[in-house]
Amino acid sequence: MTHAGALGRIAIIGAGQVGTALGIALRTGPAAADVTLHDRNATTARRSRRRGAADRISDTIEQALTCDVVMLAVPVEAIIDILERHGPSFRPGSLVIDTGSVKRVVVQAMARALGPEVHAIGGHPLAGTERPGPAGADPAGLSGAAFALCPVRKDPRALRRARALVRAVGARPFEVDAAAHDRAVARTIGLPHLLAFALHSIRPGPAAELSWSVSSGFRGATRLAASDPTMVASFLAANAPEIRMALRDLRAPLALLERRLGDERGLARALTEAVS
Amino acid sequence: MTHAGALGRIAIIGAGQVGTALGIALRTGPAAADVTLHDRNATTARRSRRRGAADRISDTIEQALTCDVVMLAVPVEAIIDILERHGPSFRPGSLVIDTGSVKRVVVQAMARALGPEVHAIGGHPLAGTERPGPAGADPAGLSGAAFALCPVRKDPRALRRARALVRAVGARPFEVDAAAHDRAVARTIGLPHLLAFALHSIRPGPAAELSWSVSSGFRGATRLAASDPTMVASFLAANAPEIRMALRDLRAPLALLERRLGDERGLARALTEAVS
Repeated sequence: MTHAGALGRIAIIGAGQVGTALGIALRTGPAAADVTLHDRNATTARRSRRRGAADRISDTIEQALTCDVVMLAVPVEAIIDILERHGPSFRPGSLVIDTGSVKRVVVQAMARALGPEVHAIGGHPLAGTERPGPAGADPAGLSGAAFALCPVRKDPRALRRARALVRAVGARPFEVDAAAHDRAVARTIGLPHLLAFALHSIRPGPAAELSWSVSSGFRGATRLAASDPTMVASFLAANAPEIRMALRDLRAPLALLERRLGDERGLARALTEAVS
Repeated sequence: MTHAGALGRIAIIGAGQVGTALGIALRTGPAAADVTLHDRNATTARRSRRRGAADRISDTIEQALTCDVVMLAVPVEAIIDILERHGPSFRPGSLVIDTGSVKRVVVQAMARALGPEVHAIGGHPLAGTERPGPAGADPAGLSGAAFALCPVRKDPRALRRARALVRAVGARPFEVDAAAHDRAVARTIGLPHLLAFALHSIRPGPAAELSWSVSSGFRGATRLAASDPTMVASFLAANAPEIRMALRDLRAPLALLERRLGDERGLARALTEAVS
């Protein structure tokens, strides 16, 4: 067995973009952590390890759960599924953290599935790219990024260990209530993605004919529409109630701006107020 | 009098971001053009000249109109106002082009105000920054940018001279009907600006408290909200009918995505279709 360092032996479940970035950051960062990687797709796991995300691959999820720290870096649905199916196998004393972009359903599932002797906490690194899989991983993007930590129950030890883990990947830990987290990201992540896809769908004519009008502003506004639709659908669906509320909240300012279209000065005032 | 080159003596009316960028590009580009600059604000004109946008400043608009080429680089309302007030002073044989971001109302005003012996054409360089004024000018941004040319009447000479002028600033001339232009930019420029301001207005809580959730995606989606509200109001109001239609067109895909929020697979399909 290798030396595991202060953080202990770390298991990352999920070798996609996020898991791969975390693995690389943990191993090459100051913690020089020992990382065991598991992915239900063996090819993905091998690709991730080739990028430097792991010391070894664990073929079974049970083996990965014997580590001191377990990071669930899979889509939200899969996180909940793993918690429900393997709950009793999570080791007392271990730190369990996820990286899902929605937190309320995850911390609820953790509270249900894991005993109080498991140090569980919800996590969400606010870093990521539009490219899925190990090839899309950007470990440098974690440097200085905010990393939300959402308590499952009163557990100072879980919070303390999670903070150390987050710092080990170069990110800034930030404690926030799961419900407040989901409300915020519906507006800052969910809605911008939804709008980017909708906007992209009404782009003018055949690309070749009217590509001249696809200005840099449009490219910026629709950049998020280059994200993997499956990944976007996963975090939108998991946060559906808050996304619906955010959409409803957007209607009023949008309707106000629309009403002002015929009144240039009033429109300028409304635009100024929107950003002040 | 200095040597004016193949393009002739060029007057730029309006020393803001666009006029300044055009002046610098014309003077420092291969045409080494002779540029006279007029702005109703003398301080703005001096700032623009200090950035290298002009050989000289013209205190009066009438003096500027004696040049071989007149470029109207002011907001759309001001373009129409100048055409209506100074129409008879535009010189027969001169090329008159504007840079407004909306074209139907401009080419209509040109057709009304200018005699057929004036070579008039609507123009729109699809380059620009969020920063107004001479300081915001980015002449390098014109390099390779599309530059729409919208005929006012059948006038091959106007089109030929405008193409040469556009190439002299490093941009790519592109002939397009004014109505088609306005329809396209409502979707690719107007709507993204409107959405960026609306989205920005519902950002979560006090910036300091929830700034952790303002991810790079949100910053990208709301970057356009950093634009000068007066400038944005000007081009939105001038294109109001097309913006309203674009908003209406956006409703259907947005409503479809909202309906699919509860069905992750259906949502993934809808997102995929939106970008294909």
